[in-house]
Amino acid sequence: MSGPIELLVCTTCRRGQPLETDRPVAGALLHSALADRTLPQDIDLRAVECLSNCSQGCSIVLRGRGRWTYVYGNLDETHDIDGIVDGAARYLATPDGIVPWRERPAKFRKNCIARIPPLEIADD
Amino acid sequence: MSGPIELLVCTTCRRGQPLETDRPVAGALLHSALADRTLPQDIDLRAVECLSNCSQGCSIVLRGRGRWTYVYGNLDETHDIDGIVDGAARYLATPDGIVPWRERPAKFRKNCIARIPPLEIADD
Repeated sequence: MSGPIELLVCTTCRRGQPLETDRPVAGALLHSALADRTLPQDIDLRAVECLSNCSQGCSIVLRGRGRWTYVYGNLDETHDIDGIVDGAARYLATPDGIVPWRERPAKFRKNCIARIPPLEIADD
Repeated sequence: MSGPIELLVCTTCRRGQPLETDRPVAGALLHSALADRTLPQDIDLRAVECLSNCSQGCSIVLRGRGRWTYVYGNLDETHDIDGIVDGAARYLATPDGIVPWRERPAKFRKNCIARIPPLEIADD
């Protein structure tokens, strides 16, 4: 199975730091930086509130119907944008979401928080 | 939306410890202990290989169609079985997978590794 994927970004992430009211939080900046990029048409960038990976943020999720879901953490809103875009495109190119380890961006290789197999519950 | 849910258990988890070849790994013991319990019919217990939460295992996932997915870690194969069974039943009882924080088992409250919103990609 293949098809479109979702790139979820936790936009409430403060990376465990105190809230500074005069500037957007790190997660919002990460989402904004990704929204400024031209992503493949089949990658749906979505802002979500709290992926509950607060101590290891910023966090994203890559997932799609019939694919493995991956949660990545410890992402930086300035230095990791190229890697996230590259990793998302590689994920999109696979039928099951499994990108060979050596082909993953370096940041993804060392910061996988969790992976979850495709849902096996039948459609309604 | 409601319906059946999956309780995934990482059966390859060694909780970051060296492999002892003369006994099952912690994840396998956790799965076995849960398999010995009588779970509600709509909870499908599934063994999975590596949820990639190795440094904070043992790990489980609760998820279902149209529900939030939760990854829990730092679980013990002897002391946390009651809590996991209770938490899974409470998750099953909700329409969207969101159990109010105060109603979650204590171990779940402090050991949520990540949560992921329901998939929004349309069915094929």
